[in-house]
Amino acid sequence: MVVAGQLAASLSRQWHMARYAAQSQAKRTVTKQFQAGVRAVHIPTFPRTPIKELLAAKKPVDDVSSTDDATTVYGWVKTIRRQKNFSFITINDGSSFKSLQVVCDSSVNPEALGDISVGSSISVTGQVTHAPKSGQVEVQAESVNVLGTSDASMYPLSKKYHSLEFVREHLHLRPRTNTFGALTRVRNALSQGLHNYFQSNDFVQVHTPILTSIDAEGAGEQFRVVRDTESPTTNGNQFFGLPAYLTVSGQLHAEMYASALSKVYTFGPTFRAENSNTSRHLSEFWMLEPEMAFAGLNECMTTAQDAVQQSIQLALEKCPDDLDFFHTQYAKTHGKDLMGQLNTVLSNEIPHITYTDAISILEDAPVKFELKPTWGMDLKTEHERYLAEKHVGGPVFVTDYPAALKAFYMRQNDVENPDRVTVAGMDLLVPSVGELVGGSVREERLEVLLEKMRASGVDSTGLDWYLDLRRYGTVPHAGWGMGFERLVLFVTGMDNIRDAIPVPRFPGACRH
Amino acid sequence: MVVAGQLAASLSRQWHMARYAAQSQAKRTVTKQFQAGVRAVHIPTFPRTPIKELLAAKKPVDDVSSTDDATTVYGWVKTIRRQKNFSFITINDGSSFKSLQVVCDSSVNPEALGDISVGSSISVTGQVTHAPKSGQVEVQAESVNVLGTSDASMYPLSKKYHSLEFVREHLHLRPRTNTFGALTRVRNALSQGLHNYFQSNDFVQVHTPILTSIDAEGAGEQFRVVRDTESPTTNGNQFFGLPAYLTVSGQLHAEMYASALSKVYTFGPTFRAENSNTSRHLSEFWMLEPEMAFAGLNECMTTAQDAVQQSIQLALEKCPDDLDFFHTQYAKTHGKDLMGQLNTVLSNEIPHITYTDAISILEDAPVKFELKPTWGMDLKTEHERYLAEKHVGGPVFVTDYPAALKAFYMRQNDVENPDRVTVAGMDLLVPSVGELVGGSVREERLEVLLEKMRASGVDSTGLDWYLDLRRYGTVPHAGWGMGFERLVLFVTGMDNIRDAIPVPRFPGACRH
Repeated sequence: MVVAGQLAASLSRQWHMARYAAQSQAKRTVTKQFQAGVRAVHIPTFPRTPIKELLAAKKPVDDVSSTDDATTVYGWVKTIRRQKNFSFITINDGSSFKSLQVVCDSSVNPEALGDISVGSSISVTGQVTHAPKSGQVEVQAESVNVLGTSDASMYPLSKKYHSLEFVREHLHLRPRTNTFGALTRVRNALSQGLHNYFQSNDFVQVHTPILTSIDAEGAGEQFRVVRDTESPTTNGNQFFGLPAYLTVSGQLHAEMYASALSKVYTFGPTFRAENSNTSRHLSEFWMLEPEMAFAGLNECMTTAQDAVQQSIQLALEKCPDDLDFFHTQYAKTHGKDLMGQLNTVLSNEIPHITYTDAISILEDAPVKFELKPTWGMDLKTEHERYLAEKHVGGPVFVTDYPAALKAFYMRQNDVENPDRVTVAGMDLLVPSVGELVGGSVREERLEVLLEKMRASGVDSTGLDWYLDLRRYGTVPHAGWGMGFERLVLFVTGMDNIRDAIPVPRFPGACRH
Repeated sequence: MVVAGQLAASLSRQWHMARYAAQSQAKRTVTKQFQAGVRAVHIPTFPRTPIKELLAAKKPVDDVSSTDDATTVYGWVKTIRRQKNFSFITINDGSSFKSLQVVCDSSVNPEALGDISVGSSISVTGQVTHAPKSGQVEVQAESVNVLGTSDASMYPLSKKYHSLEFVREHLHLRPRTNTFGALTRVRNALSQGLHNYFQSNDFVQVHTPILTSIDAEGAGEQFRVVRDTESPTTNGNQFFGLPAYLTVSGQLHAEMYASALSKVYTFGPTFRAENSNTSRHLSEFWMLEPEMAFAGLNECMTTAQDAVQQSIQLALEKCPDDLDFFHTQYAKTHGKDLMGQLNTVLSNEIPHITYTDAISILEDAPVKFELKPTWGMDLKTEHERYLAEKHVGGPVFVTDYPAALKAFYMRQNDVENPDRVTVAGMDLLVPSVGELVGGSVREERLEVLLEKMRASGVDSTGLDWYLDLRRYGTVPHAGWGMGFERLVLFVTGMDNIRDAIPVPRFPGACRH
C-alpha cells in the first residue's frame, strides 16, 4: 500500500478548505461563544471533474488545445495501450457509459505508468483537448497517480469479454463492466421516472413495512423472521408476540393509507421463499404499488400506462448511451429492435381487451399453443406474449379475469353469467416479458369480502384491521403492482432477472 | 352494505369511457387483426376533484357563486353539524391538511344525510362557491351519496381529540387524523427532497439488498431469516446455504457500487433486533446512505448539509399547512419554535468542530452533565444537544472522533499523538434530536483495514468481496448515513419515533 501512501501525499497538496469554510465565513452569523470554540480544521476536498461533464465539453472552433487550467479526473482503467513514446489509457468513473482517453507522453511519470493495469484506479491531471481527427475529448496528462493497483494475474475482469454467468460470480466487481454500469444507471433512471410520475401527480409515498404478521394469502411461500439470539418456536415469535414474516406485497398496507390520503404508492423490497432456480424468479425484488381511493379500473390503466411511459421517457433522456449499448450489443444481435419496442410504448395509448375477448383471439390464433386456450384458464407466458407481440404488436391491457383465478381482494363484477363470474382486474402484458403490471379494483363491500375470504380459505384473524377499513367509511378503491425488475428487463432487453437487480438473492445466493 | 350498492348504482351513471377510449381511437394505429378483437369495454372512471385543488381556487372578484358546472368531491367526514334548514359537513380526502366545508340545504337527500357520521365516506356533487364573509371555498351540495357508513358507537376516532398513545393502538385508522395525515405528507416531501438532491447531483440510486449474510459487525442485534416451511438449523440456512440476516446498513453494498459508479446512494429499510422499548428505537426503519468515491470528509459534510437543506426546503414548499400545524399545535405548546429551528438550518452553512474541540467546549460549559466530559468518551445525547442547542444554536458537525469509539471501516487519521488516535469521521448533531447523520472516510488501505478488523474482532471470512474492493483499484471514498425517521422528528418536532413511520415495528408490535 505504498501506492495509497503516495495518493495521500499527492492529495494533501490539493486539499483546501474550498467552498465549505469560505461560505461558512461569508454567510454564517455565529455567536461569539461559538467562534471561541472553533479552530480551522484541515479538511480535504477532492476537486473532481466527472468524466461525463468533460465528455460533454464542446469542441473548440479552432480545434486547438484548451487553455484552461489543468483538470483532475479520477477513474478506473478500462484499457491501456503502450507505444514507444506515448501511452493511451481509457478510464471510466461510472458517471457515463463512455470512457475518457488519457494521452501520456514520455514526460509523464514512468514509474506510475508501469504500475497501471486494467482495474487500477488512477488520478490524472492535465489539459482537456480534442483529438485532432475525431474531435473526441481527451486529456493530455501532465501527471498520473496510481491510487490503487490491480494485479492483472488476479483481477477477474482483466479480459475484455466475459459471459453474464461468469460476471455474476464476481458480483462485487460486475458494476465495473460496461453492461452492469449501464444497467445500474438505467435502473436508477427508471426508478426516478416512477417517483417523478407519482410525485407530480400528488401521490404520497408510504413506506409500508417489510416485517408483517400477515401470511402470504396464497401469494407464495414466505420467509420467517426470528431474533438471532432466540431459538425460534413454531407457534410464535417471542420478539413481536406473533410470527413475523417478510412481506410479499405492500398492497394491504397501501390500502390502509389510501383509505385516508386517497392517492398513495409504496415502492420497496418484497420477498418470496419459493425454491425456484430460474431466470424469472428472485427471493428479493422491488415492487411498485400505487393505491387509489375513489378510483376504478380505468384509473388503474391510465396511471399504469402513464407511469411506465414517464419512466421509460426519463431513461431515454438520461441514459441514451446506455440504452444504445443494449440496443446494439444485445437486442440487435438477437434480432430484436429494442428502441423500436420502447418507442411503440411511448407513442401510443395502450389498448385494452377483456379476458373473454383475449380467449377468443387466442382460440382463433393461427398458432398452436402448448396449452389450448379455454375460458377459465390462467394465461401462460406463451399466450401473454402472443397477445402482446403478435396480435397487438405492443403492450396491451387484459381486463376482467375469471374470479377463480384471482386473489380474494379483487372486486367481483356484476354477475351476468353464473358460469363466468369475473373480477375487475387488469394485467398489462408487454412484448418479451409478458405480465408487467397486475392490478384490480379492491372489494370494498364487507360482506362480499368476508364471503370471498371464506371461499378462498383466507384466515381473517390477523386481518381485522383490513376489514375495519370496510367497516368505517369504506370507499371504492383500486391499485396495481409492478415487479420493478421486469420493467428493467423490458427496457434493457436483458433476459435474466438476476441481472436486473444490483445484488440478486436467490436459492444459494447470499454470499456477497 | 346497501349503501355500497347505492354507490355502485350512483357511480354507474357517471361512468364513461373518458379520456382512455377517446384517445385510444384518436392516436393509436391499430392493425385490422387487433381491431377485430376489440369491443367497447364498459370501464368506470371517477371524475374526482381533489379537495386541495378546490381550496386553491381563486375567490371570484364579485364574490358570487361560480357558474361552472357541478363538481364532484369525495372524502371522509371530519365533522357534521345539523341545523334546522342546513347541515354543515367538513370532509377531507387527504390531499391537503385543510378540509372542505359542504353546505346542504333541506333540498339535499335527507335519507343520506341521516346516515352520515364522523368517519363516513361520501361523495358530494354541487357548486363550488366562496363563503360570503370568510371568502373560504365551500361546496353548495346538490346531492350527497354515502359511500360507506361509520357506526359512531364503534368508530374509535369519532371524538375530536385523542392522545398519540391511543391513536397508536388504532394504527390502521390513524392516517385519518390531522396529525398523521400531516406526518405522512411531510415524510413524503422529505423523502422526495432527498431523492431530488441526489438525482440532481448525479448520484445513482442503488437498491442494496435486505437479505445479507453479513453479520452486524457490532452494529447491533440482528434478525435472522428462515424459510417458513423449514425447521431452522443453528449452523446455516438451508435456503441460501449460509445464515441469512436482515441488513443493519446498506453501506458495505453501497461501497461495492461506489467502487464503480463513484456517486451512489441507497435509501431503504434497515433492521435492529434489540429488545428496546423506547421512544427512540424501532425494529425497522428507513436509512439513507450515500457513498462517494474520490471523496473525503469535506464532501461528506457538504452533501449532508445540502441534502438535509433541500429536503426541508421541499417540505416547507409542499406542506406549509402541515408544518404550520406542527409548529402551532405541538411545538409552540411545548415552548419550542419549530419554524425558527427549520429556518436556522436553511439559512446558514453548518459549522464544524473537531471532537477534541467539542470536549474542550463541554469541559468549559457552565452546565453540570450527568456524565463528565473527558477525551475518549462517547458523546451522549446530553452532550450532543448542548453542543447543538446551547453552544452553536443550530446544527453542527463534530469530526475526527477517537478511533476506539468508531467502526472498523472508518479511515484512521495520521497519528500525531499515540494516546489520541482519531478517525476521519463526522456526526451531524441537531437540536432536539441529537445525532442526525453519521459518516466517515472509509479505510481504503488493505493492510490497515485488515489490522483494524483483527483488532475489532471482526470476522473477515464473509467479507472477502469487501476486501477485494481494496485489492483491485482501491480508491479514497467516504459516505454517511441518516436514520430517516430522525429527520422526520426534527422537521415535525414530534418526540416519539413510533409516530415518524407509517407502520411502526418494535417489540410486541407487528399486529397491523
